[in-house]
Formats: sequence, structure tokens, C-alpha cells
Amino acid sequence: MTAIDQAEQLVLGADAQALLFRDARTANSFSDEPVTDEQVQAIYDLVKWAPTSMNQQPLRILLVRSEESRQRLLPHLMEGNRAKTEKAPLVAILAADTDFHENLPRVFPQLEGVKDMFAANDELRLNNATLNASLQIAYFILGVRAAGLAAGPMTGFDAAGINAEFFPAGKQQSLVVVNIGKPGENPWFDRLPRLDYDEVVTTV
Amino acid sequence: MTAIDQAEQLVLGADAQALLFRDARTANSFSDEPVTDEQVQAIYDLVKWAPTSMNQQPLRILLVRSEESRQRLLPHLMEGNRAKTEKAPLVAILAADTDFHENLPRVFPQLEGVKDMFAANDELRLNNATLNASLQIAYFILGVRAAGLAAGPMTGFDAAGINAEFFPAGKQQSLVVVNIGKPGENPWFDRLPRLDYDEVVTTV
Repeated sequence: MTAIDQAEQLVLGADAQALLFRDARTANSFSDEPVTDEQVQAIYDLVKWAPTSMNQQPLRILLVRSEESRQRLLPHLMEGNRAKTEKAPLVAILAADTDFHENLPRVFPQLEGVKDMFAANDELRLNNATLNASLQIAYFILGVRAAGLAAGPMTGFDAAGINAEFFPAGKQQSLVVVNIGKPGENPWFDRLPRLDYDEVVTTV
Repeated sequence: MTAIDQAEQLVLGADAQALLFRDARTANSFSDEPVTDEQVQAIYDLVKWAPTSMNQQPLRILLVRSEESRQRLLPHLMEGNRAKTEKAPLVAILAADTDFHENLPRVFPQLEGVKDMFAANDELRLNNATLNASLQIAYFILGVRAAGLAAGPMTGFDAAGINAEFFPAGKQQSLVVVNIGKPGENPWFDRLPRLDYDEVVTTV
């Protein structure tokens, strides 16, 4: 199939395909235009509907808005990520709440005892928190794009340092830091190659 | 803001918001209509563009198409998930390739030595494989919806059992199993509550 044939296999319109996936890019510079709380609320109101295991919803989003908070964050990032993060209109720390199970009696009421099951098994709880917060991070990145903004997600930071600095109670684990805004000058690196279908998908 | 005000903060059109997030649901029963390889190719061709750390792309997708393969899968699932998985038009095992770093010289050529960095650090490699494959699983779920299909993602299975059965070389770690198809009769459970914005998002 050609790329055009493939795009036509989809129900999602071409504009939406472009906005979320085909034309969207990881931004490395941003304009000065602010990102408002209303925009973040609209993004969350959209992506909150995407699925997690047992409706766990472990993602927590820390918006780093004050200059003082941003200066506390920067030293924990890889050196090459500091300058762009210092200038981005909004920076968010995306973390997994390892106490997500406290909410399960309310958000997953059909399974009695599920909170206790997770309370009794730290490894199970951490694995579920990490997996499902990661799913929600991906939904959030696409939600940023759905708002007409660019995301610049970053890993490779000192997670223990960020956790100690921003989550001293030990209940949240930082997974991704993301810059958010309208793209600035020369915002993109060259697009990197993607794996072929046959490298990723096999059939048994 | 009302929900309508929030939807209007987004650039993504209302139809696409509904298709991917607001109206989309996790399906628990499916019609008999097959899911073709062409549809899976179109989904991959869309979602492959979404970002991973250093372009790692660790997601591997195993399509469980033969009856014999499906019977090998079912005993590893939670009992309550077996009947619907036996009948779904397509079942896929979504796994992380822990040898993703072998591809980095080709897909992330700008950082010399990055393959060796991951080869020398099993914990770093596994954490990156899990996080980034999880991001890609979320992209894939939304891609299934973009194709007009419903996804029924499942966790809570015996991952070690599935890995031994389907990935005996030890290079892939199963993370999610997903049923895919057009929804069947009574396909949805009641929608579960989502956390409020103020429970998820804080500002510093």
C-alpha cells in the first residue's frame, strides 16, 4: 500500500492525522506566547477519557510556573536540555502516583478489595503506576498537540533528584519532563527514521 | 469553564475528539467482522510518528492470528478476560524489545556510542524499553480508534508465562494484550469516573 492508501484506511480525518501524528514534531524552541491554565484544563478534559488498567489514572502533572521552581528543576536535567527548558512557556513534570490505589474504591468500585490488593504488593503497585502513567503521558503529549501546541518531552534527567526536590513525601515518581508552547525559531531537528512495519509487527 | 468551552480551546475537531477520546470506549465484545493486515499497517503507519526518547521505538506487536496461537495465549490471561479474547477478531500482544538499542546507530545516528551506553547498563535499558514501549502502546490504542475500531486493552496477565510461550529468546517483555475489532452486542461497561483536574494537576 502507498502512504495515501494507508491514510484512507483510517476514519480519523487527514487534518487530525497531521495535527496529532504526521506533521506534529517535538519542539526544541518556543515562542513567547504563554500557555494558559485554561489550555491545560482543556487538554486534561480531553485526555482523561483514554483508558488505564482498572481505571487507575496514576498520572500526576506538576506545572512548573514560578521562576524559582524552574531554577530548582534545571540542574536535574541533562545539560543539553537546560537552555530550552529555561525559555519554554510552560514546563510540566509528569509523574506516577504510587498511591493511586487509594482512589480505586471510588474510581473502580466494582472490584471489592482491589485497594488492599495493591496496598499489600509494592512491586505490583509500582509496575502498575509506571505502566499506566506512561500510557497517560502519551495521551497527554497528543492532547498538547490537539490544543495546537507543541510538546518537547524529555527523559534522561536525574529522576531521584527531581523526586527529592518536588515530591519529598515519596509518593510520586517523575517519568517525563515536557516543555509546552507554540514553536519558536528553527524548532525542529531533522525527522528521524521510523522502523518499518515488518521490523515491528509479526504474526503467529 | 464548561465542557463545551474546554472543547473549543482545542484545535482538534469535535469529531476527532469524540472518535479518539470522548466517545471511544474499551470494548468487551466484538462483531465477527475481521481486522485486516491492511488496517494494522495503516494504524502503524500513523502512530509510528509519535515520539519516543532518542527515537528508541521499542514497541513490538505480535498479532495472534492462528487458532493454535490463540489457544496458547488464553491460559495466561485473567480468567475473566479469556472468553472475550477467544472471540475477538484480532488479538495482539504488545511488548517491549529490550534489544531496541541495536537499532540506535540507524535511528538515532547523531549520538555516537549510544548503543554501547545501553548495552552496558541493563537497568537503564529495561527502564527505557518499558517507558517508551508504554508510550507507544497508548499511541497504538488511539491508532486503533483512528481506524474506526475498538480496542480492549488488558493487563493483569501472567507476563512471565506469555514471554516464555511467545518470546523464548528472552528479548521481549509483554506489557499489554489488546483485543481489536468492531464492537459487538452490549460492548461497553458503564463509564467509570475520572479524577478531577485539581486532583491531577498542581502548580509550583
